[in-house]
Amino acid sequence: MIEGIEAAYYRLPLPLSGDAGHGQIDAEELVTVALRADGLVGHGYAYTIGRGGRAVLALIEHDLAPLLVGQDAADVEALWETMWRRLLFVGRGGLASFAIAAVDIALWDVRGLRQGQPLYALLGGSPRLIPAYGSGVDLPKPLPELLGQVEGFLRRGFPGVKVKVGRPDAAEDEARVGAVRRLIGDRVDLMVDANMAWTVDQALERGRRLEGAGLYWLEEPTAPEDVAGHARLATTLSLPIAVGESLHAPSEFRRYVEEGAVDIVQIDPITNGGITASLQALALADAAGLPTSSHYADELSAHLLCASRRPVYLEKHAFALDPYLEAPQEVVDGHVRPTQTPGTGLRFAARALAPYRG
Amino acid sequence: MIEGIEAAYYRLPLPLSGDAGHGQIDAEELVTVALRADGLVGHGYAYTIGRGGRAVLALIEHDLAPLLVGQDAADVEALWETMWRRLLFVGRGGLASFAIAAVDIALWDVRGLRQGQPLYALLGGSPRLIPAYGSGVDLPKPLPELLGQVEGFLRRGFPGVKVKVGRPDAAEDEARVGAVRRLIGDRVDLMVDANMAWTVDQALERGRRLEGAGLYWLEEPTAPEDVAGHARLATTLSLPIAVGESLHAPSEFRRYVEEGAVDIVQIDPITNGGITASLQALALADAAGLPTSSHYADELSAHLLCASRRPVYLEKHAFALDPYLEAPQEVVDGHVRPTQTPGTGLRFAARALAPYRG
Repeated sequence: MIEGIEAAYYRLPLPLSGDAGHGQIDAEELVTVALRADGLVGHGYAYTIGRGGRAVLALIEHDLAPLLVGQDAADVEALWETMWRRLLFVGRGGLASFAIAAVDIALWDVRGLRQGQPLYALLGGSPRLIPAYGSGVDLPKPLPELLGQVEGFLRRGFPGVKVKVGRPDAAEDEARVGAVRRLIGDRVDLMVDANMAWTVDQALERGRRLEGAGLYWLEEPTAPEDVAGHARLATTLSLPIAVGESLHAPSEFRRYVEEGAVDIVQIDPITNGGITASLQALALADAAGLPTSSHYADELSAHLLCASRRPVYLEKHAFALDPYLEAPQEVVDGHVRPTQTPGTGLRFAARALAPYRG
Repeated sequence: MIEGIEAAYYRLPLPLSGDAGHGQIDAEELVTVALRADGLVGHGYAYTIGRGGRAVLALIEHDLAPLLVGQDAADVEALWETMWRRLLFVGRGGLASFAIAAVDIALWDVRGLRQGQPLYALLGGSPRLIPAYGSGVDLPKPLPELLGQVEGFLRRGFPGVKVKVGRPDAAEDEARVGAVRRLIGDRVDLMVDANMAWTVDQALERGRRLEGAGLYWLEEPTAPEDVAGHARLATTLSLPIAVGESLHAPSEFRRYVEEGAVDIVQIDPITNGGITASLQALALADAAGLPTSSHYADELSAHLLCASRRPVYLEKHAFALDPYLEAPQEVVDGHVRPTQTPGTGLRFAARALAPYRG
């Protein structure tokens, strides 16, 4: 039985960061959840790029915690449905999915602790070695800094790197991507991310200019609402189209997969609405034969991608929570494995977080 | 220039209420906004059916107010875009739309106060007399109480009444709707609202059983995500399909209109994301030749429907805020007119609200 759910809010500072869709990003918000049930404590979290975190905290404290206390923690999927229905009027995606995710992750942790199984095993997966790519949130960085960041990724042995695109001047994007390609050579994969900044026509033009750089994918070229636009881009461009972080409900993934609007399905267990929801996204990708990757939540995604048929890359995110974890994710030769301890393996380092409590 | 935005949270108790999609509803949450700019004070609000209101308050206080203070209040549409983009990562509909709406409504109020014009005039409308229908949130009410409520609607002269459907037993729905039809006779319009409770197949079966009652519309028969399902129902059933309260972005209305999934477009300036967003929904309806109606926000909707080409009905909602307004909306022979004073005409009665401040 769920005895209590405690949430806490932190605002974590970031170095100069930003992208074409969200502008400058100067902080990451973290909302942690500790869920007590049957003598166990499961941990979960939600994050934002600096906006909306207080609202996520409010949903957990005022709406979800009172709803779940007293219920059986074991039936994780039914509790996801209970939360979803409770927030239906203000939810069906959007911000509500972030709050549901934080609780859902803690429930999966409890399930793992109870069964003595790591998360990937609960999901029916094997502890695979997964290639990771180094990922920057670097649109405002001048070129020398951008290249310095990429050199850092190469030193860590990542087989792939990602940079942001979507500068006002198309030629500048082209020059930056070209410089990165020259730096990394042909053996390292290169992804680019436009963060929804373009119209479909702009994305076609920008995409064509970048096709020569041999890109592994073009991420979020246009507004997530425009599924037909994504389908047109996926059909017309030779670049594979990757989406997922902005899809806040399994039904949104379904539309993308059904309409041929995505080539690489990216899961994010926070923005998608929890592990329970990301699993549905992975199942949709598997059924369509699509490769999968991840966005953020590196430590959880390592488990989730082990339950996917065609995981191609885990994103090692510039804002990764590693500095705030008791056991930061190990990256060996640019690859990661899921943790082997029961549950998610996710434990926040209280001392590291304390200065940022809000 | 916007000098300050103050928000307040209230939890207003309700009598026994509920529907098939949201279950029992025992309180309404109200988040008020007072926006000060250039010596004027504009008022706005968001509401919920008892869940998520604290999160709406948090978004306004922590994310939107700091963003808007210091900006020019006059450019309402640009500020809507600013708010939308600021909350993009956690938004694009959902709960974020409720918070944006509260501020947007206050900005329209300021615009009206500054120009000395009532809202409908700002929107290019004339102060039309609009038929209103009495609307219950009455699924849990036993039949005698349901009929008592409908008798109350008839006494107020409403030319239409709406009741909830979606009881587990289809025969019970049929009996209740039949009893209401017998009570109101053939001259009063009768709408029913399923609040998203059915699958498409269930909605087809339930809809066919109700076709004989001569219904004016069937509202929210199935999940809002299933636009194709709504289109199938709109094509197959002889009942007009009404939707709108669950659409939290103009792009969601666009899908419904483009795919022929809606026969009557219902606007709700809070859940749609503000007056600015509801206007886009009305424009889509006009362009498609579709009639329009409203959901909740009776006092604001009276203005908005004056800017529509084919407004058929304003919903006089069971939870209307009239008890908490300085000037409750006047209903004369079941019809309403927009207020004539500058701005929205919306002013909360501080004394009536005070006991419910949270």
